[in-house]
Amino acid sequence: MNEIIYLDNAATTSLDPIVLDTMLPYMREHYGNPSSSYSIGRTSKAAIESSRKKVADLLGVKTTTIYFTSGGTESNNTAIATAVKTLGCTHIITSAIEHHAVLNTVEHYCADNIVTCSFVKLNEHGEVDYRDLEEQLQSKSNAGIKCLVSLMHANNEIGTLLDLKTAGEICNRYGAIFHSDCVQTIGHYPIQLKEYGVHFASASGHKFHGPKGTGILYVSEGTRITPLIHGGGQERRARAGTENVHGIVGFAKALELAVNNYLPDQIYISTLNSTMRDGLLKLCPEITFNNGEQSLYTVLSVNFPGNVGTDLLLAQLDRAGICASGGSACSSGNEYGSHVITALGIPQKGATLRFSFSKLTKISDIDFALETLAEILNYAKANQAL
Amino acid sequence: MNEIIYLDNAATTSLDPIVLDTMLPYMREHYGNPSSSYSIGRTSKAAIESSRKKVADLLGVKTTTIYFTSGGTESNNTAIATAVKTLGCTHIITSAIEHHAVLNTVEHYCADNIVTCSFVKLNEHGEVDYRDLEEQLQSKSNAGIKCLVSLMHANNEIGTLLDLKTAGEICNRYGAIFHSDCVQTIGHYPIQLKEYGVHFASASGHKFHGPKGTGILYVSEGTRITPLIHGGGQERRARAGTENVHGIVGFAKALELAVNNYLPDQIYISTLNSTMRDGLLKLCPEITFNNGEQSLYTVLSVNFPGNVGTDLLLAQLDRAGICASGGSACSSGNEYGSHVITALGIPQKGATLRFSFSKLTKISDIDFALETLAEILNYAKANQAL
Repeated sequence: MNEIIYLDNAATTSLDPIVLDTMLPYMREHYGNPSSSYSIGRTSKAAIESSRKKVADLLGVKTTTIYFTSGGTESNNTAIATAVKTLGCTHIITSAIEHHAVLNTVEHYCADNIVTCSFVKLNEHGEVDYRDLEEQLQSKSNAGIKCLVSLMHANNEIGTLLDLKTAGEICNRYGAIFHSDCVQTIGHYPIQLKEYGVHFASASGHKFHGPKGTGILYVSEGTRITPLIHGGGQERRARAGTENVHGIVGFAKALELAVNNYLPDQIYISTLNSTMRDGLLKLCPEITFNNGEQSLYTVLSVNFPGNVGTDLLLAQLDRAGICASGGSACSSGNEYGSHVITALGIPQKGATLRFSFSKLTKISDIDFALETLAEILNYAKANQAL
Repeated sequence: MNEIIYLDNAATTSLDPIVLDTMLPYMREHYGNPSSSYSIGRTSKAAIESSRKKVADLLGVKTTTIYFTSGGTESNNTAIATAVKTLGCTHIITSAIEHHAVLNTVEHYCADNIVTCSFVKLNEHGEVDYRDLEEQLQSKSNAGIKCLVSLMHANNEIGTLLDLKTAGEICNRYGAIFHSDCVQTIGHYPIQLKEYGVHFASASGHKFHGPKGTGILYVSEGTRITPLIHGGGQERRARAGTENVHGIVGFAKALELAVNNYLPDQIYISTLNSTMRDGLLKLCPEITFNNGEQSLYTVLSVNFPGNVGTDLLLAQLDRAGICASGGSACSSGNEYGSHVITALGIPQKGATLRFSFSKLTKISDIDFALETLAEILNYAKANQAL
């Protein structure tokens, strides 16, 4: 088997060995149930609470605003459920390029006739039209309708960033509840959540070298979660079920490493990204990119000209040991292709690929990917598919 | 610190080192997102699907009936949500001694006026009055009301077992949907789910030396889950969110070890249990036990006479390094005490403690616990608290 060249870090990242080492004691000797009152139960409880404090400190918020979940999807579901069921939101404004964890949840409440929903206008890079957001909120507000606004901080396929502060200010101006899916940005930026006026923010551990099956939901002070999962009193009665202690510890450690090394990591990864971008343009000047002007530095979304489809190009890369993706991982294999690319009206005759990088990506990985793509594209050109 | 004498295996069990070894490759090299189509994504996907097949084979059911969740609580919530939201159940028959993962979920749907609910009659050991169950179902059936029956296979506090087959037959006779919380029994008995006519059964990995944060929901053939968590297409669109691959692999391995070693483990653990029971009676003949005649071999529920309360006795044991519990872990620290003990009308003047054993409990652990209890009881007697 070829060495793996992993260029799909927006889908998931490898678990940092340091994070695994932090988790292992909680998979070996510290196995107590955190709800138990004896010594090893208290050890588990203390691990959860110090993880919560660590996460809260890193995100610049109070400890009591952080809830551990089984992942970003559960966090998004919980935020939307709370807004709809408890906070009185009867209309949801979101965008057509949100992750399915938001889109399908919104659709669920719409289908049940519990809420109505509308999409905010986007430009061709997926950037939010803030004037449209404001107009929609104003009109709903005038009609006495309370809104939930759910907009992702960075799009997982094309990297386009939302200006959280601007969106938060507009939402607050019209008394709207503001949820942001920050799964692609928490752990990639030194986000201080309190500055943005968000009521809910979601994050997922495996997107920044933490363990799969872990996430958090930030809930602004004074807002109470409506539990999605009922049962025991864990997570201050907001999320029942015996806690995934080793996962929680791993989430916090991964976030700590990510935030503390943010600047050198960002500089390094941005260099990888621009090397890939420049190299691609050298290979084929007709290539275009879908990232917005303000874009996540980990993601590069590329449109290849010609007739080679996304699936074929990915399969050819896979054969060379290179991991990249079409849309998001969650929608891969979806016969309709990427809903993001479709929503933005990007012509999909040729392939649209996402390359995404991490601190563990090597410059030589980029070189190898470019060489391999050169071969594939040359072959396609010779066979008149390009 | 004293060596830990862990006698609270119904709260959680330690992770089997063999299970951890099976998980580690999925926390190191096999980190691909199972939804990704390239090599390391397919490796993760294959690990999930072979785990699903393993679990299904061990439980004697088809692979397509097993769904992975974040734990028993989520499984219970999903089963009840499906029965209420999709299968047309408008009345729930359950018992007052179910786990809060069932009780609080039922209460949630009752509070929303989506269903009504009633409790089945129990005797003083928590054994179900099957005639009452039948009468209730008959009366609802005559009124054209479709019921969900949710009864746990083994009570987590007092070990009392349900006759799954009898309950299943009664439910099927009246067209009721039958859910059983099998969190305390799957992994402790060689359960062949198909024999019992259950529509839903829940299990939790950490109850049989698997990882925390893992569970399954069995859903009988032809029944479709109503997702609790919406988003990507994972788990055949029944449970969204990037899969906890290492957790799923660990769950399956732990179940395999548990089922394959079931007989010697049961014989050994039953011996520990009866040694503890006999030893306690020798210490203090006034001690009584709450377990039913058919009782889970891992659990011993003990009523101590006298004035020493549960919390004080547990604290004294904890000081000696002995881990035991009052009610369940999930309700420990609950000022109202155990809802199970209360519901069964067991006088709570003295302490009621649960001791629960596993294959890793040593005979010397029992001896030490008995010696320590002898000292505590003698001291209490000398101080007229007993």
